Amino acid sequence: MSENLIGIDIGGTKLAVVLAKRTGEVLRKRRAPTRAELGPESVLQTLFALVQELMQGVQWRDIAAFGVSCGGPLDSDSGVIYSPPNLPGWDAIPLKQRVEEAFGRPAWVENDANAGALAEWKFGAGRGLKNVIYMTMGTGIGGGLVLDGQLYRGTNDLAGELGHQTLLVDGPECGCGKRGCLESLCSGPAIARRAGAALEGGHRSSLEDDVSGDPSRITAEAVFSAARRGDRLCREIVDETGEYLGWGIGNVLNIINPELVAIGTIAVHGWDLLEPPTRASLRRHAWPRALEAAQVLPSQLGDSIGDLAAIAIALAHLR
Amino acid sequence: MSENLIGIDIGGTKLAVVLAKRTGEVLRKRRAPTRAELGPESVLQTLFALVQELMQGVQWRDIAAFGVSCGGPLDSDSGVIYSPPNLPGWDAIPLKQRVEEAFGRPAWVENDANAGALAEWKFGAGRGLKNVIYMTMGTGIGGGLVLDGQLYRGTNDLAGELGHQTLLVDGPECGCGKRGCLESLCSGPAIARRAGAALEGGHRSSLEDDVSGDPSRITAEAVFSAARRGDRLCREIVDETGEYLGWGIGNVLNIINPELVAIGTIAVHGWDLLEPPTRASLRRHAWPRALEAAQVLPSQLGDSIGDLAAIAIALAHLR
Repeated sequence: MSENLIGIDIGGTKLAVVLAKRTGEVLRKRRAPTRAELGPESVLQTLFALVQELMQGVQWRDIAAFGVSCGGPLDSDSGVIYSPPNLPGWDAIPLKQRVEEAFGRPAWVENDANAGALAEWKFGAGRGLKNVIYMTMGTGIGGGLVLDGQLYRGTNDLAGELGHQTLLVDGPECGCGKRGCLESLCSGPAIARRAGAALEGGHRSSLEDDVSGDPSRITAEAVFSAARRGDRLCREIVDETGEYLGWGIGNVLNIINPELVAIGTIAVHGWDLLEPPTRASLRRHAWPRALEAAQVLPSQLGDSIGDLAAIAIALAHLR
Repeated sequence: MSENLIGIDIGGTKLAVVLAKRTGEVLRKRRAPTRAELGPESVLQTLFALVQELMQGVQWRDIAAFGVSCGGPLDSDSGVIYSPPNLPGWDAIPLKQRVEEAFGRPAWVENDANAGALAEWKFGAGRGLKNVIYMTMGTGIGGGLVLDGQLYRGTNDLAGELGHQTLLVDGPECGCGKRGCLESLCSGPAIARRAGAALEGGHRSSLEDDVSGDPSRITAEAVFSAARRGDRLCREIVDETGEYLGWGIGNVLNIINPELVAIGTIAVHGWDLLEPPTRASLRRHAWPRALEAAQVLPSQLGDSIGDLAAIAIALAHLR
């Protein structure tokens, strides 16, 4: 049995390829900018060259399979990518087939949130659990669901869009075209926008100096930094973020009753500040027995979840 | 192979036992009042007597198994019932074991919402589908989830509590102790309460005559009847119910991406009035591709879902 796997992570700004053992131990890693503007053929050629570089001195017989993590929408059965927002021109690209043809090894493709759920379940806080949710919290809010020990994709690969539950029916516009989605309140850009609106509304904050008075330079990171050093407005913005987050996750606990919700990027870096308001809100919105059954934590894989996500896809299929 | 199954439906007001073929064809049926106030032993004796009556002239060798549908909380693995609100004194009653000991046939116990989901999937609009949600809409709002062709119960048998997602953070008090749950807005008592509050607030409606001026006599049925004959206030109450319902179901479509949501009692009797506002709201709250993938309908088993629910439990385990 070939012991090693190759993971491919296709992001809007960077490509990463990883050679790893089935245990999740990363042996080698290569990266390159995606340069998505050059179109899918160019990106695929860069990707294939990265894989060749990764394989220098490694035998192909030691490679069991590829896992490929990519932004959706995509069809996980056929491995075809359908125009993800971050990959312009990737319209019906048969990614699974292209990788298999190029390297003669089986390949499986999943969207990045599903891949994150598999990684958290195989290698992170979800090891040995049956019902694991991974929630992305960065530019957007999405999610992947492992239920009864299997990735649950839904009817057309859309399950887990936790960020697009409506919380505030007249809330802010969301990138998806709806209003008041969890994502429109708690994503990185949403946090920055709420802080910017407060400054423009005349609130005082040391954040103003941090961004040299230019609200367009506010980021969620800047809001968390200012909150961490005691800035009152930024503390309020973070507290409000936790309230919405606990509300959204509380709804999910009541509907899905998981053992674990592991939250990505923003929670990984800001849990010290986010945890208290999130927990208070969870206690208001989740049923006590559903809350008792569930750990709610930042992803235990931190920022390395991307490396393991693609590996976990291959592992889930080989099992 | 024994071709027949016995279904037991334990409700707060009535007990029903059904003898049916594996195809769902009901051969015989017996009912009795639950008389829950007499305590679990008395109820079980009534139940066992009903089964004996049902079996008159039938051979036990023709019976493969029992399915038992009962209000939760309960542990579906052990078949133990833990104090459902509608069965006072049923504290840790080993229902599965009691039925198996009494009749020498395997028995499985599920909560009524899960049983409804199995029935809709085996015998109703969900036949042949993989991802089916059954939503109860009566005294309360609950749900059962069949995902990837299996009943999904969650970590401690709480999955599917669709009615306890928070829609309005400062909304009406819910029976569960929270505020603004879908159930607190769309259950039968919630519909009646909203109508009563409108009357007390001075709105005029022919509903007043229907209940002889006594708001405590308002029921959801009365609101739908008045709406159906054109009463303006009751039309507004029904429209508002559809708006909340579409919002709650829209969230569920985004999170679970099912092929079917089949809705019980109130939708079964009032879909003519509820459908237009519900669909308009679904279009606002669900992602277009998730909405396209999903039928949203009243239960196709109508009021007979209770008979088939218990049979479907047995069938799901024997498969």
